[in-house]
This record gives sequence, C-alpha cells and structure tokens, in this order.
Amino acid sequence: MRALTFDTSVKYRQYHPDPTPGPDDALIQIQLAGLCQTDLEIARGYRGFKGILGHEFVGTVLKSVDLKLLGQRVVGEINCVCGQCDMCLGGLSSHCRHRSVLGISHRDGAFADLLTLPNRNLHLVPKNVTDEEAVFTEPLAAAVQILRQVKVEKRTRVTVLGDGRLGQLVVQVIRQIGAPVSLVGHHPGKLALAERLGGGGTLSICLEKDLQPRQDQDLVIDCTGSAAGLLLAMRLLRPRGTLVLKTTVAAGQPLNLSPLVINEITVVGSRCGPFRDALSLLAQKQVDVSGLISRRVKIAAAEELFTAPLGADTLKVLIRFDR
Amino acid sequence: MRALTFDTSVKYRQYHPDPTPGPDDALIQIQLAGLCQTDLEIARGYRGFKGILGHEFVGTVLKSVDLKLLGQRVVGEINCVCGQCDMCLGGLSSHCRHRSVLGISHRDGAFADLLTLPNRNLHLVPKNVTDEEAVFTEPLAAAVQILRQVKVEKRTRVTVLGDGRLGQLVVQVIRQIGAPVSLVGHHPGKLALAERLGGGGTLSICLEKDLQPRQDQDLVIDCTGSAAGLLLAMRLLRPRGTLVLKTTVAAGQPLNLSPLVINEITVVGSRCGPFRDALSLLAQKQVDVSGLISRRVKIAAAEELFTAPLGADTLKVLIRFDR
Repeated sequence: MRALTFDTSVKYRQYHPDPTPGPDDALIQIQLAGLCQTDLEIARGYRGFKGILGHEFVGTVLKSVDLKLLGQRVVGEINCVCGQCDMCLGGLSSHCRHRSVLGISHRDGAFADLLTLPNRNLHLVPKNVTDEEAVFTEPLAAAVQILRQVKVEKRTRVTVLGDGRLGQLVVQVIRQIGAPVSLVGHHPGKLALAERLGGGGTLSICLEKDLQPRQDQDLVIDCTGSAAGLLLAMRLLRPRGTLVLKTTVAAGQPLNLSPLVINEITVVGSRCGPFRDALSLLAQKQVDVSGLISRRVKIAAAEELFTAPLGADTLKVLIRFDR
Repeated sequence: MRALTFDTSVKYRQYHPDPTPGPDDALIQIQLAGLCQTDLEIARGYRGFKGILGHEFVGTVLKSVDLKLLGQRVVGEINCVCGQCDMCLGGLSSHCRHRSVLGISHRDGAFADLLTLPNRNLHLVPKNVTDEEAVFTEPLAAAVQILRQVKVEKRTRVTVLGDGRLGQLVVQVIRQIGAPVSLVGHHPGKLALAERLGGGGTLSICLEKDLQPRQDQDLVIDCTGSAAGLLLAMRLLRPRGTLVLKTTVAAGQPLNLSPLVINEITVVGSRCGPFRDALSLLAQKQVDVSGLISRRVKIAAAEELFTAPLGADTLKVLIRFDR
C-alpha cells in the first residue's frame, strides 16, 4: 500500500505488508486524512515515534466482525487502550497506561491506504456529513473537550490564543455557548477568516503585536503551538482565571511561574475529546470546517508537506487517496 | 522605633517617624514576628520592594476606633484592599487591583516595633493560643487555602514536595482530612520531624534523591520554593491529577509543558488563605507549630538572618521584640 512514513525523515513509499486486523479490530481503507501540528512535531523527531504518520482520517471499513461497521464510512478515536489498567478501570481510558496512539505512539497511522483500529474506537459518519467535514472530527473533538473540563457560560470572557487550525475550531465551539470571544493571532488573513465563519456571541480579533496587558479575561485557551502561550496568557487573565493549555510543543523556554501563584491562576492541560459530540456538531452544521481547508494534496505528493514551509496563511491541509 | 529595612541591602536601624494610623486603621505593637521565604526573596531584590520587611506577626493594638480591638492581642491579614475595584466587588478582595501587601508591596511590614493595618484586617487571638503559636497564623492560613481550592478526601493520594516551613504545615493540614500523605524533601532531619509531629492519616517520607517516577498521585503540592517543583510533580502525578503551586520564586528555568497537556494535569496557583480557619486549628491544638521553631532572634540581631545562610535544618525563625 501507499504510505507516508517517518524514520529519520518523512518518506512517501510503497509499504509492505498490508496491516492485518486482530480479532477485535477493523481494517479501514482511508479516503481522506488531515495534517496536524503534531505530525509536523513528530517529523522534527521530538516524539520518538517511527512508522506511518497521521491520526485524522475518514475511511471505509473493509473487514470487521462488527456488522454495524462493515462497509460503513467511519472516523476513529486515536487512543487504543488495554481495558485493564487503573486508568481504564477508573474511567480514564484515554489515559490508559499501556495505550498506543494512532500515528503518534506505537501504532501506525492514517497516512496510508489501510489502517487497523479496534472496532470500539470507530464511529459511523452521519450521511449528511461529507468526507471533508468528517476528517475534522478528531481536532473538533479536541476543541469540544475544553467544555468538558472548564465551565464556559454566556458571561465568561474568553480569549483564544492562536489563529491556526485548532484556534479556529475552538473559537467556533466557544461561540456556540454565546460567550464573548477574543481571538489573538499573527495573521491578518486568518483572523479575518474567523470573523467570516461566524457563530454566536461576539468575536473580536487582535494581532498579537497590538495586544495590551489586560488581566480581565476569565478564560484563556492556548492554541499557539508555542511555549510563549503561557506568558501571553498571564498578561490577559484576571486573578483566579483559568488557562487551558492545548499546546504540546516539546521545546521549553525559561518560565517564571510566580504570576500563576500570585494571581492564583488555574492551568488545565487538555488533549483528546468526545468524537460523538464533534460528529453531532458537524451533522447539525453548527461548525463550519470547510472554510478551514487550504489545500488538498495527493498522498503521492504529500512528502513535500514536511520539507517546505506550509505558508503563513495555510490552515488545514488534506491528504487525498484517489483510487 | 527599631526596624529591619530593605533598600539595596537589609539593615537594622532606628526608623523615624513612627507610623501614623489612618481613621480606619489600628496601630499595633509587635510582640513576635516570623521570617518567611518571601522575606528572603525580597532581600535578593527580586520583588522590587523597599521598606520595612516582614508580614507574619502577633501584636497588641495600641490605637483603634474599634473598641473590640483596642488593647487586644491580634494577628493581621496582609492584603490591604480598596473595596472598589472589580476584584473587591466580585468577592475576590485578596486580589484587589490596588492592594498593598504588608512588608511585600507598597506597605511597611512587621519587622518593626510598630505597624498599622486596617481594623478589618485584624483577628483577635484566642486566649489559649500562645504568641509563638499565633505568629504561624499567616503561613498556616496559606496551607489551609489549598483545601478551599481543591477537593481532598480520605482516599486522595497526596504528595507534598518540600520539607521546609510551609511543607510541614501543609502536611499537618492535609493529615487532618485523613488522606495518605507522602512528604518529599532534601533533609533527613526535617523529614523525621514531620513524622514526630504526627497527625491523622498515614505519612510516608522520602528523600528527593530516592524518588522513583510513579504517576499515581492524585494531588501534588509544591512547597519547594524552587522552579524544579513543577518537573518533579509531573513525574509523580497520575493523568488528570492536580498540582497545587505554592512556590513564588521568581527565577525561571526552561520548562517543557507538554506533559501537562498529554496527561491533562491541572495546575492551581495558591496564595493567601483564611485566618479564621487557621486560628481555629491553633486554638483546637490540631496543628503543632511549636515543633517548627528553630531559632529565636532579637530584632537588634536579625540583620544577620539575611547575610548568613540559615542552615539546612532550620525551619521557622522568630524575631523577638523584648521590651
């Protein structure tokens, strides 16, 4: 099969053998995959992962003992769990001690014609959700996760840091609540896009270079993908405010954490989220994801995504598997 | 009056004039004051404060329009607030936008014969609480604050990082709940002291150099006073665990925050706490503070506390105002 692999560099190649599903697994043929910041991080060697990249996909189930899945269009949760450890038994299976993670840790990913995932990881895609919408399920779920971890109300003053792919999804999810949102970014084009995509509540946009210290925000959500998000957040949050950290960039920078203590800030790390809720938002057309698609690249040409810069105005890049 | 002041260095000197209380203030004669890590930080010039140091004290009210206070033995909350700003009106007056803080920010402190504080900041010391107990009210309140910010139950697995003054108080407060506590520190003598002081629940002690990564603790409380506490905590916390940060040390070190995100850790900054609760614990003899007193120094000799190291086994140093 065709695949995009990472060892010391990213390579497009023919990959043998095809994956073989275990008894509780499905074999899935990929239609469309999405490129994520994490893939680019892995390709810089920061995660120690080797294998087929990619974890955002929509595909068709070719083999499964679960007849509700067979032949159906699906998306899949990326954490493959043991079901036995203290985390799994304690209801926190996404933090399974022995998990593998699709295209991220100990499991080949979605930038290939075929992949396997446990049947229980799969969700049917509603008929009125297109492939190009469904491929956003995973990052949209990660945005929805924020609402499961912190309370957002209409009166909550929210700032989202980062005008990239995830920031754009988070803004739309928060606007569902009707809370006033400020979006801070580096790119006039991306900030303007967030305004065009619309939603509930009010949205104000601001270039990071024009940002004034405010210390009046109840909630700041860091989607910058950079270690600077924490420092920026501390300039914006009110005392006892909450920072949600979405950035998994490994690079450190010297951080003085005393403002966290003095202002009694709460920081909440936030990762994967509920696929069901994300699919429901997509089916109800409450989130506009198609406006976030910048480019569509064939799998045979996808290697270049890792060698040349994506461009400042690039949001989501999709990888096609035309057959 | 006698006072210990900081400008570019700490000096014991005669200070003129004596402080004059405003109409809503009390004039207090200090009996006993406590030395805190924050005082040492200020003396390193990290906080930009100049003036009389000190914020832990017990004293007697010499002047006040409040007849319930006049002539009484008191302790005092350190944040002096405006009552008008959004924080004060929103019930978060300890985060007042315009606050001064006793011996820390824009207000002369307690290492002097006399100080002034607003009447509303003062709490009467119960008769069965000695001066040497009462002087611990402020740091004990800071320990109690943790219980107001995070839920601690009998089954919560807690690790306290740091065997110093604050760590010792936090251990005793958490043991009130009956939760199993591990105390991690650098000093065998201080760790052994924590065992001698007793309390509810179970206590296990561990030298930091012997610590094994565990990732099974529900709650880690950082009282190390060092920027390393966060990294240490991430080795101990279970996924979705909580870290309470008490360290206000200003020095930064490069931090890779991605484990916070991947393990969805919550970090809670924690500062001043409820004096009433702390006095109640002292009156009921539920916390043993006298065991934490290492030295008693006369105010005239207290300058040396800032010039020579306190010694590895030193816990609380008290400053006496013999008259």
